[in-house]
Amino acid sequence: MSYRVHVRVMPRTGLLDPQGQAVEHALGALGFGEAGGVRIGRAIELEVAAPTRADAESRVRQMCDKLLANPVTEDYLLQVEER
Amino acid sequence: MSYRVHVRVMPRTGLLDPQGQAVEHALGALGFGEAGGVRIGRAIELEVAAPTRADAESRVRQMCDKLLANPVTEDYLLQVEER
Repeated sequence: MSYRVHVRVMPRTGLLDPQGQAVEHALGALGFGEAGGVRIGRAIELEVAAPTRADAESRVRQMCDKLLANPVTEDYLLQVEER
Repeated sequence: MSYRVHVRVMPRTGLLDPQGQAVEHALGALGFGEAGGVRIGRAIELEVAAPTRADAESRVRQMCDKLLANPVTEDYLLQVEER
């Protein structure tokens, strides 16, 4: 089976996010003062061949732990879709 | 009302994604040969004060068009959650 996996890698809650702060400031200057709490991370999409959905998720978690996310400063969330 | 909006800004389909290619190559070298079609974009989370969910979505679309995404090279997807 082939699965499409969406990964969201975000700065860990409580850590400063200077990029998010800069974007929030720019949004305010453009007239979007109603926006707050801006956090910026990475969105990663990939296809994974695996026998089951659970296997696909487990393998992508290993990819996150080894390469896609920084375990000290970032958290990640997965969404797995069957293709 | 306050809404939490998740934005996923991805390189437009058909455009080269050199960052995604580099990550796919690195995953293969780490033993994750089952991963393919890797695309890398930005994940943005923000809170928006708006009277309705439709207003929140409409305002965030404007933010994407003006600042958060590059309309020539990127597409974006929104998910709106009530808080």
